[in-house]
Amino acid sequence: MEKLIIVKVGGAILEDQATLNDFLDHFNAIPDLKILVHGGGRSATHLSKQLGIETKMVDGRRITDAETIRVVTMVYGGLINKNTVAVLQSKGCNAIGLTGVDMNLISSVKRPVEEIDYGLVGDIESVNTFAFNLLLQSGTIPVIAPITHDTKGQLLNTNADTIASSIAVSMSETYDVSLVYCFEKAGVLSDPDDDASVISDLSFKMYQTYKQSGMIHSGMIPKLDNSFKSLEMGVRQVIITNAGTLSTSKGTHLSL
Amino acid sequence: MEKLIIVKVGGAILEDQATLNDFLDHFNAIPDLKILVHGGGRSATHLSKQLGIETKMVDGRRITDAETIRVVTMVYGGLINKNTVAVLQSKGCNAIGLTGVDMNLISSVKRPVEEIDYGLVGDIESVNTFAFNLLLQSGTIPVIAPITHDTKGQLLNTNADTIASSIAVSMSETYDVSLVYCFEKAGVLSDPDDDASVISDLSFKMYQTYKQSGMIHSGMIPKLDNSFKSLEMGVRQVIITNAGTLSTSKGTHLSL
Repeated sequence: MEKLIIVKVGGAILEDQATLNDFLDHFNAIPDLKILVHGGGRSATHLSKQLGIETKMVDGRRITDAETIRVVTMVYGGLINKNTVAVLQSKGCNAIGLTGVDMNLISSVKRPVEEIDYGLVGDIESVNTFAFNLLLQSGTIPVIAPITHDTKGQLLNTNADTIASSIAVSMSETYDVSLVYCFEKAGVLSDPDDDASVISDLSFKMYQTYKQSGMIHSGMIPKLDNSFKSLEMGVRQVIITNAGTLSTSKGTHLSL
Repeated sequence: MEKLIIVKVGGAILEDQATLNDFLDHFNAIPDLKILVHGGGRSATHLSKQLGIETKMVDGRRITDAETIRVVTMVYGGLINKNTVAVLQSKGCNAIGLTGVDMNLISSVKRPVEEIDYGLVGDIESVNTFAFNLLLQSGTIPVIAPITHDTKGQLLNTNADTIASSIAVSMSETYDVSLVYCFEKAGVLSDPDDDASVISDLSFKMYQTYKQSGMIHSGMIPKLDNSFKSLEMGVRQVIITNAGTLSTSKGTHLSL
């Protein structure tokens, strides 16, 4: 099967033009078919603040009201997406910036209201592998902003990690897929304050132990739960690594 | 040659959800290959105001500083583009929302500073007909926001009418192209206050007369100059019509 690399980048990387530039150099150098998925939460929070819109987060997830979906559509789908594509194009990478609504790439359902009403937040229902295939095989590099739609005209704010893993799982039917999460740390750390403490190989069993002992906690847990689930569902490898080097030989390699 | 319809919509149409919906119903009903180009200046002015950024216009053109290019990238490339695509997708139209930077669809050069420094404004240099062809022939409907790039990483604000006519001219090499400008009026009017005074056929010669007499003036002049130039450069027909009906049999038909 042909190789396909799905790279997720978020957090601090997107906000600093020099760091973003280095990251995109590494991304551009990947010789295989590839898809980039980006976040942008901090910039959305910043714009919301400028506009006097209160940001409400529950467990790291943004409560998305009618005003907030406008903000994230502007920031994720416009500002960050198009600037990333502009930099990639300047490097000779034939990037195309898209959201889940374009070509109906990713459809979702508005998250049902249970204890918390997340508002206009989407839980992914379907990834249009036919459309992704068409884009990849025509030589373009999709750059995906974390916005999906309900197919009835409503845009929905959707977690970028989940978008990356959903694309990875769906594309595993036809490709040998590697999913690479990039962030400012060197990988999953046994000591959060020591970048040299990278756990280079993390099995599901070890993960359970680390989780129970509290050594792995908070924000890493949904990311890792998601990652192990992707491996179970056919993704060949999941790597959590530093965005500055985008080195798939370093970082944390997950295994079942 | 296969037919291709390029529709430009702007102004008041984009701001009212009901009007936009009617317009997009008509657009969706066009049986031929098609491309939609949209503006969004009023929404950009509104967001600028909310952010405390002063809007400076010269002859209807926006002076685009570093802050303003961020605003238009968010509003044109994000908010308006993705909402338009969401509505089209809900109607079963396989729309894809793009700017000139995506797939390097439209490259431009920063307008040289002469009497006025327009800032980050692009004059179109090249339309990537290969990429437009690929999109059209794969069954997608491109929805284009008026942002281009200089191929060196800089996004540039670019007039939507000019984008529509540049695409139309370039695509005329391989398609039988009709260029349709849609707005809130019924067409080019001999009396601006009377929607029944539509000039149904406007030759270049008549246009010169009307222009000299002052009957056609201000904002219509660059649009019409542009349109007649498009006809000279191979576009088969140019129609200026009402967005509510998007009727190509009504409105003003231009001829050389």
